[in-house]
Amino acid sequence: MNMSNEHDTKKRIVIIGLGVGGLYAAKSAMNADRTAEITIIEKRDYDMFSACGLPFAIEGIVPSFDALKFSVPGHLKRLKKLLYHELTSIDINKRSVSVKNITTAGSFDIEFNALIVATGAEPVILPVPGAREFIGKGIHFVTNPENSKELFEHAKKARSAVVVGGGGIGLEVAIALKAMGLDVTVTKRSPPVLPRTLDPDMGQPIEDHLNERGIRTLFGKSLEAINGSEHVESITIEGEVIKTDIVVMSAGVQADMKLAQAAGIECSKNGVVTNNRLETSVKDIYAIGDCIETFHLINSKPCVMRLATSAYQQGIIAGINAAGGNAKYHGALNTFVSKIGKLEISAVGFNSKIAEEFGYEVSGTKVKAPNKPEYMPNHKDITVKILADKKTGRILGGQAIGEEGAAWRVNMISLAIRAGMDISALNRAELAYSPPVSEVYDVLSMATEFAKRRLGRNKNS
Amino acid sequence: MNMSNEHDTKKRIVIIGLGVGGLYAAKSAMNADRTAEITIIEKRDYDMFSACGLPFAIEGIVPSFDALKFSVPGHLKRLKKLLYHELTSIDINKRSVSVKNITTAGSFDIEFNALIVATGAEPVILPVPGAREFIGKGIHFVTNPENSKELFEHAKKARSAVVVGGGGIGLEVAIALKAMGLDVTVTKRSPPVLPRTLDPDMGQPIEDHLNERGIRTLFGKSLEAINGSEHVESITIEGEVIKTDIVVMSAGVQADMKLAQAAGIECSKNGVVTNNRLETSVKDIYAIGDCIETFHLINSKPCVMRLATSAYQQGIIAGINAAGGNAKYHGALNTFVSKIGKLEISAVGFNSKIAEEFGYEVSGTKVKAPNKPEYMPNHKDITVKILADKKTGRILGGQAIGEEGAAWRVNMISLAIRAGMDISALNRAELAYSPPVSEVYDVLSMATEFAKRRLGRNKNS
Repeated sequence: MNMSNEHDTKKRIVIIGLGVGGLYAAKSAMNADRTAEITIIEKRDYDMFSACGLPFAIEGIVPSFDALKFSVPGHLKRLKKLLYHELTSIDINKRSVSVKNITTAGSFDIEFNALIVATGAEPVILPVPGAREFIGKGIHFVTNPENSKELFEHAKKARSAVVVGGGGIGLEVAIALKAMGLDVTVTKRSPPVLPRTLDPDMGQPIEDHLNERGIRTLFGKSLEAINGSEHVESITIEGEVIKTDIVVMSAGVQADMKLAQAAGIECSKNGVVTNNRLETSVKDIYAIGDCIETFHLINSKPCVMRLATSAYQQGIIAGINAAGGNAKYHGALNTFVSKIGKLEISAVGFNSKIAEEFGYEVSGTKVKAPNKPEYMPNHKDITVKILADKKTGRILGGQAIGEEGAAWRVNMISLAIRAGMDISALNRAELAYSPPVSEVYDVLSMATEFAKRRLGRNKNS
Repeated sequence: MNMSNEHDTKKRIVIIGLGVGGLYAAKSAMNADRTAEITIIEKRDYDMFSACGLPFAIEGIVPSFDALKFSVPGHLKRLKKLLYHELTSIDINKRSVSVKNITTAGSFDIEFNALIVATGAEPVILPVPGAREFIGKGIHFVTNPENSKELFEHAKKARSAVVVGGGGIGLEVAIALKAMGLDVTVTKRSPPVLPRTLDPDMGQPIEDHLNERGIRTLFGKSLEAINGSEHVESITIEGEVIKTDIVVMSAGVQADMKLAQAAGIECSKNGVVTNNRLETSVKDIYAIGDCIETFHLINSKPCVMRLATSAYQQGIIAGINAAGGNAKYHGALNTFVSKIGKLEISAVGFNSKIAEEFGYEVSGTKVKAPNKPEYMPNHKDITVKILADKKTGRILGGQAIGEEGAAWRVNMISLAIRAGMDISALNRAELAYSPPVSEVYDVLSMATEFAKRRLGRNKNS
């Protein structure tokens, strides 16, 4: 099959990978060019799934792993899906990709006018003895419904688990396995919780909450080995041997950029390099989502942001551009939320450490207050921390933690950063108030008011 | 008592009325001037209460009416509170106010360097037969804990009630009385729900929900009379006589500006006139909250906004200015939320009708979507409607309705309007995603995306 001679007047856009980024790229391209032929190549034999939902299926909050699967929306009829097909190479000169049909093992080429690389990321396998050997023999990953279900089935029969890695997913999985009745330990190399996202004082309540739930936390400890004969039997962490039936590898991901690299598309160590149109070093080849290195909205420095949020936004931009438009990506802000046990933890922008690494003098203001009036039943405390540049008052980041409403305070900060607002401008936000929903003087307003005063910006407004 | 010779070097700031506005004015003035003497004059014999909580105390969600009362924060020690004292006049030439001690009936004057008028608003009494006669004899108001408790006690023994007026408080009270087991009718003169706040299509679900709860709605009908012998026995609405034990008067409020007017301070028919420093026509006399006419942030036109949200913001500004600062108020946006039964209904800026009255050509986009992935239990639909100016893409307003999360979508729109964002800029908001908290592609992002397309702004971004 060679599609090159069909429909010569129509633009051919090929998208590699049907994740959130690929889906929104397809939608956006179809919307921008009503005649374009769009083809998505995807290894899986089904459309899509929600990766962020996996821990909640293990916990039983989501009724089944199949419930996380979903189909490409029905209105995308012009979209050709090549499921159970694998990309084998990209030819940037011939402007074509080679694709293998996994069922038949047959290969064919597809020519493109524009290509969107959305190959995602792969889990990191730590370079310690046993880490590769015991995959499928007690070592599990939580990256798709199939491997998550394997973990779930194993966990039903197991007594203990160690989660290696303390990212959002790892901590959510630890909570889930504990809820299943296992003895759970979480171990990670850096001492603070989510060190690239939270300040240590904002991360501590998460560690405390894990401990309250009876989860052992070994943070700031290096994994040395995974031990066993046929199956995992224990792990060694800084000399201590901990018996365990299960090891969940959740030590981060790395961009899947092998084929882009092989094709001569520029890649950094973090991912495929893209400009603000999300175009790679090769004209008409775009890249989005977990496989790219993007740039930060605040200071335009390269960064990786492997969140569905940025993937769909990048997909929309790349889709427009692949269809011949000229949309600009304004940069990522790393707007993050995770629900770890009862705690909703959210953050945006730089944390104090990263802001300081970039040379900012950081003024941090932290306030804790109820999300609703104290006379309302079920009011919950939220702690908001806002970071500003001492020199300009510009907002650099925000973090929030509480049982509900943390993410929306952070979303407001995210929008304020995007608008280039300083602390005083965000402080003027007029928020809706009604006792069953909110407080008159929201914790976000308090935080910005106190931050303003700290910055000496309270005389005028 | 005459305070004029005491502490001559210290600034004397007098605040009339201890509501949300007065409290934040006091806090703000004390913070801006560490030596100022601040006096608040308040008719009540206790500090404060939450007016917006009253319907929820009637419904029994708040455990008691006393729970709604609260004290001025302890750190405001420099603040002199003259509780159970009533303002009798303002002398703008002598720069003093006359005050009556309600307990002793004695009067005295207080000189001021700066005065902040925060006298609030009074309920409207409709000019129909019986409306004044039966006050205390079946006609009730819900404006303070005392009169709300009277309604509550009466309702416990009554079978039926008519709420006159369809504002947020009126509808919340209707829900509360229905929950108490009464037959409830709500009547209001204008046909749509919240016609100055919502578009008719966004208000309709509220009327439907009231009917689902068994509340009769007579919207677009004029009250003609309240009838009875000793007590209320019925009302007449466009010829129909409806038997009722209780009438709740909730037909709006009017600025309490009698004393400001008598003192020669400029007032419009809507309230005390203020500039963008919240100063009245008289130098060093400020006015805030429900008693003023303010201006709209979008088009700087005069408007009234009688919400606690604007009162506290105005209080902060007036407090700074009364203390000698130069803070500017940027205008009100009318960010509103009410919880009517299970529905959270929120809005900001202009609705379509008002925007058109102001000469805008309005492009409205409405989207309904779940607040969380559909595989999560307890996901709830939210409908978001966003209004933009067809010519410029500027955001003019937003409305949202759903069982939870409506207010925060509207808060985002509120901040975007404040930042002067157009639809495309708000569409670039990067929102936090995790299945227990939110969707990848939030209903707000959908609404702005569709609005962008409708405005032909989708080719570039």
